[in-house]
Amino acid sequence: MIAQALPSSVVIREVGPREGFQIIPKVFETRQKLSLIEALVDAGLAEIEVAAFVRPDKVPSMADAEAVVAGLQPRPGVSFSALYLNVKGFQRCEATGVLSNKAWLYTSPSETFLRSNSNTSIDESLASVPLWCDEFHRAGKGVHGLMISTAFGCGFEGAVRAEAVVNLVERYLAALSGLGESLAEICLADTVGVAHPNSVRACVQLLRPLGIPLSLHLHNTWGLGVTNVYAGLCEGVSIFETSIGGLGGCPFTPGASGNVATEDVAYLCHALGVSTSLDLDKLCCAAELAESIVGGPLASGVYKAWRHSGKKVW
Amino acid sequence: MIAQALPSSVVIREVGPREGFQIIPKVFETRQKLSLIEALVDAGLAEIEVAAFVRPDKVPSMADAEAVVAGLQPRPGVSFSALYLNVKGFQRCEATGVLSNKAWLYTSPSETFLRSNSNTSIDESLASVPLWCDEFHRAGKGVHGLMISTAFGCGFEGAVRAEAVVNLVERYLAALSGLGESLAEICLADTVGVAHPNSVRACVQLLRPLGIPLSLHLHNTWGLGVTNVYAGLCEGVSIFETSIGGLGGCPFTPGASGNVATEDVAYLCHALGVSTSLDLDKLCCAAELAESIVGGPLASGVYKAWRHSGKKVW
Repeated sequence: MIAQALPSSVVIREVGPREGFQIIPKVFETRQKLSLIEALVDAGLAEIEVAAFVRPDKVPSMADAEAVVAGLQPRPGVSFSALYLNVKGFQRCEATGVLSNKAWLYTSPSETFLRSNSNTSIDESLASVPLWCDEFHRAGKGVHGLMISTAFGCGFEGAVRAEAVVNLVERYLAALSGLGESLAEICLADTVGVAHPNSVRACVQLLRPLGIPLSLHLHNTWGLGVTNVYAGLCEGVSIFETSIGGLGGCPFTPGASGNVATEDVAYLCHALGVSTSLDLDKLCCAAELAESIVGGPLASGVYKAWRHSGKKVW
Repeated sequence: MIAQALPSSVVIREVGPREGFQIIPKVFETRQKLSLIEALVDAGLAEIEVAAFVRPDKVPSMADAEAVVAGLQPRPGVSFSALYLNVKGFQRCEATGVLSNKAWLYTSPSETFLRSNSNTSIDESLASVPLWCDEFHRAGKGVHGLMISTAFGCGFEGAVRAEAVVNLVERYLAALSGLGESLAEICLADTVGVAHPNSVRACVQLLRPLGIPLSLHLHNTWGLGVTNVYAGLCEGVSIFETSIGGLGGCPFTPGASGNVATEDVAYLCHALGVSTSLDLDKLCCAAELAESIVGGPLASGVYKAWRHSGKKVW
């Protein structure tokens, strides 16, 4: 009866151990992070972003990135990655020898956001593509993906039109093409959580003719995270970046919702008959562990309901 | 670009003053309820369910139903109604002389739920239709709608198939037809919050050929309330029953999510370009008032974000 052909299965990429701790003004123990990563692996997550290689003075909660990576237990079929934003960070990732990091380029359609977040402009970020490609090649990698922050809107410039994102992608593709490179994935990140189903669908529809797999990194700021995942599924998107328990906001600041929760997305997918590699009960156990680590209540709908219903999933 | 033709406008029917207080094991002052109702009227709500005429010994929080109705300030264009479940409750509603109650029949596709909630069976509820019609006629009313509880699933019988709902509706239509009555609205209630976008869309699609306006009464138990509203909008549903601040669960029981929140639905609709009669800022103020009355934190995504962002709506 349902008109949309939803994907038969999706990949859920966990970013909680990185994005979940990054914003919290508190330093967690490396062993706590490792125990959470273990629980996530047990729950079936096969792609986990475990840390960010960024400046320790700017993000103290990520100062132990090397230690976290050193403590990882290799598991068949599970790939661990880390975030980097500049060449030094990429080199630190590579130096670990453990991470299966793909080569990502980072940009945004918002000049103001780029300036504020990375002290660069769109033109400058495009001009850096050859340097990045050289760096990737030195590590034996071709370009994998383009991560587009604030793809649907930002606090500085308001709503972003889908046409602006397409234009940005086309400029990157032109720059890459001259270097014999292409894109195997475009990740649309709703960095500040202002996407809605129409903006998600419009952007996916406009990008689809490029034939490049699209992924969505959604936040739950205004409560639309799961709804936007559903909009993405309706448009055939089959890769989602999520965070266990909805980590990614600050649990000490009421109302600061984080990423869309891994268990909420898994629950939605399973209800819709879209398969994931995930065990929902174990995800809720991992969310419980995350909650005990951060020490504040997590906002995920499924986790809350699971607790309330005697730790049973409907 | 978007495939679905969403409704250009929707009616949002507020049930918070009734369903929001009903479940909380605490008695609130009549004046508190009236102040919330005033705030809801100020925010633009034109249909508000203000009380339940049920047994005071079973639902002490609704014992002041007559007093609430007596305290209502009439406003042009605003209709106040109340819930009733049996003839005595309907007569109490009518006796107030103030409520613009429509004539609703109540049923469920779950025998177990009906037995547990109303001590009746589906056959018995159908057999009572002539008695209800007599009662409605005495009050000068024809039948308006059929409210279907647990339309998508219940805790006793699990998931409900859309075909079972259609079969139930057809039996009611046959019974009504023999009495010269019909239905002007069918409300599908996800009483325990287990609907998902596919079950919502399947049920709406199967009922649509009947040509009867459909409304949705959704709960947020597993975090899918807003997503299910979106699924309904995609199928052209244009009447939603919601509760300010997501009231309807119990704020003293962590995880007991309530109805889908009025402000969350309004935010979604406005983002999608679907007009409502509502002022989102004033809705958030009403949610704040509701929170202060119930004395526990409310779970609505938009209300939390509004507080967090200095009481500004994105």
